[in-house]
Amino acid sequence: MTTATTTTDFSAWSHAHLQRVESALQRVLPAPEIAPQRLHQAMRYAVLGGGKRVRPLLAFAAGELADADPERVALAGAAVELIHAYSLVHDDLPCMDDDELRRGRPTCHVEYDEATALLVGDALQSLAFHLLGEFRLTDDLKTQLEMVKLLAAAAGSRGMAGGQAIDLESVGKNLTVPELEFMHIHKTGAIIRASALLGARCGNGLSEKEFSQLDQFAKLIGLAFQVVDDVLDAESSTATLGKTAGKDARNNKPTYVSAIGVARARELAQELRHNALGTLAGFGDRALRLRQLADFIVLRKF
Amino acid sequence: MTTATTTTDFSAWSHAHLQRVESALQRVLPAPEIAPQRLHQAMRYAVLGGGKRVRPLLAFAAGELADADPERVALAGAAVELIHAYSLVHDDLPCMDDDELRRGRPTCHVEYDEATALLVGDALQSLAFHLLGEFRLTDDLKTQLEMVKLLAAAAGSRGMAGGQAIDLESVGKNLTVPELEFMHIHKTGAIIRASALLGARCGNGLSEKEFSQLDQFAKLIGLAFQVVDDVLDAESSTATLGKTAGKDARNNKPTYVSAIGVARARELAQELRHNALGTLAGFGDRALRLRQLADFIVLRKF
Repeated sequence: MTTATTTTDFSAWSHAHLQRVESALQRVLPAPEIAPQRLHQAMRYAVLGGGKRVRPLLAFAAGELADADPERVALAGAAVELIHAYSLVHDDLPCMDDDELRRGRPTCHVEYDEATALLVGDALQSLAFHLLGEFRLTDDLKTQLEMVKLLAAAAGSRGMAGGQAIDLESVGKNLTVPELEFMHIHKTGAIIRASALLGARCGNGLSEKEFSQLDQFAKLIGLAFQVVDDVLDAESSTATLGKTAGKDARNNKPTYVSAIGVARARELAQELRHNALGTLAGFGDRALRLRQLADFIVLRKF
Repeated sequence: MTTATTTTDFSAWSHAHLQRVESALQRVLPAPEIAPQRLHQAMRYAVLGGGKRVRPLLAFAAGELADADPERVALAGAAVELIHAYSLVHDDLPCMDDDELRRGRPTCHVEYDEATALLVGDALQSLAFHLLGEFRLTDDLKTQLEMVKLLAAAAGSRGMAGGQAIDLESVGKNLTVPELEFMHIHKTGAIIRASALLGARCGNGLSEKEFSQLDQFAKLIGLAFQVVDDVLDAESSTATLGKTAGKDARNNKPTYVSAIGVARARELAQELRHNALGTLAGFGDRALRLRQLADFIVLRKF
């Protein structure tokens, strides 16, 4: 295997970049022996316990498009992953989805306790912004402040947290495909888009038009990610997923599968992938990793 | 009553500045008719329901020391107050202090529901950083990024969230005064210090030495605030406080009153105030509002 940057092989590239983001996360998370120890241990448990790291990989792929330094993108990717990890910890709490399994292990509130899990999520969100305030991610400070705003908007009530609220309101309802789209564009889409945009903002190679094309790509691939998630939840085993399978149906949540069936959902994922790839047409070889990531997201088995 | 800036009267000054921060909060909180409506209504309920706004007032008083534009300080104060409001919503949840009364009204999870209250806290934290990324608070962008870092550090696991974790671990224990100090320097002190420092960073009138004196003032007055809180919790009625009185004893939480008794706690608050005022000796009239605020904090009845 050659080094990631000289090969077109996706698995070698993703392996090398996963190491970068793990290293960034290790660096920014407080050590487990720093007080309050139990909180810091629980934060590390929630973040460092595996996960596909799709969002940081998307940041790296977008960073390549914009000729960004991957060490800077690793920090942007770590910030996004901290937000994602906090959202999982809070989403698994008894008052939300009440789930006991995540990434093949007990969820944070099961391994520790509810109060600690609440604080873990709270502190991980703070840490994401701490990171954006502390490390230089771009030469232009105005752009870096825009990155703070971009991540905060994606995480907040008109982004991810708002999507969770829409999700809560939709339990037991039959949503149409446009209504499902509206929910997922907030709930998972906002942070997926932010991943791509933050990665690109670390570099300076993109025009505003290209930036907008990248945003459209991320929007479509974020929806594809969710459609595939719904199919996997309906069709895979808990062991394969590392989280409780079939929980959408059990919790009476509307999904693409409940709305249009498995076969049509599979087709929809392929259509979204096709359209996402279409937005990259003008980028040539610079978008290689984005294309590969789109394939990875749609073809994944867990 | 004359305008706030031309009078030495504290209540007129605080009244005028409270209006500034309320107006900033109204401006940054999403309107109740924006989707998801219930979440936005609950966010507004949690933030706009009164409160003493001690932290924004401290930001304004520190801003005067540093010759800052009060309109900019209002935004910094709003960011701090959003963090404070989120912490109250999460702190009141059943898995934490399980409280039903706050600012004379039902707590957020009682008025809405637990899941919504969880998301309200999460989204208010995002909004605080959104604000720091969106609005220009100082002419120097590097300073503004430091403000992001400062607020994130104060809110995170080595600040407020860490203090909550220490608080959880201390239930049922007898803490010494130094141990109580350690807890409160994190739990309430970190955000109180951040309030003063953010207010001062909006201006440019302070040397690093003066900045450090202000920090010391805020640290001492933050402790005084907590000591007074413990005395009020032990001695006042629920009606006066607008939150459940006597809950520290009921929850078996160590307090200054349980550690050293009411009489000694009152003396300690005065000593801390005296020492805090001592750190302002070199500032002359510029520190008038800080001195008045120190008096307000120690002499308050609710």
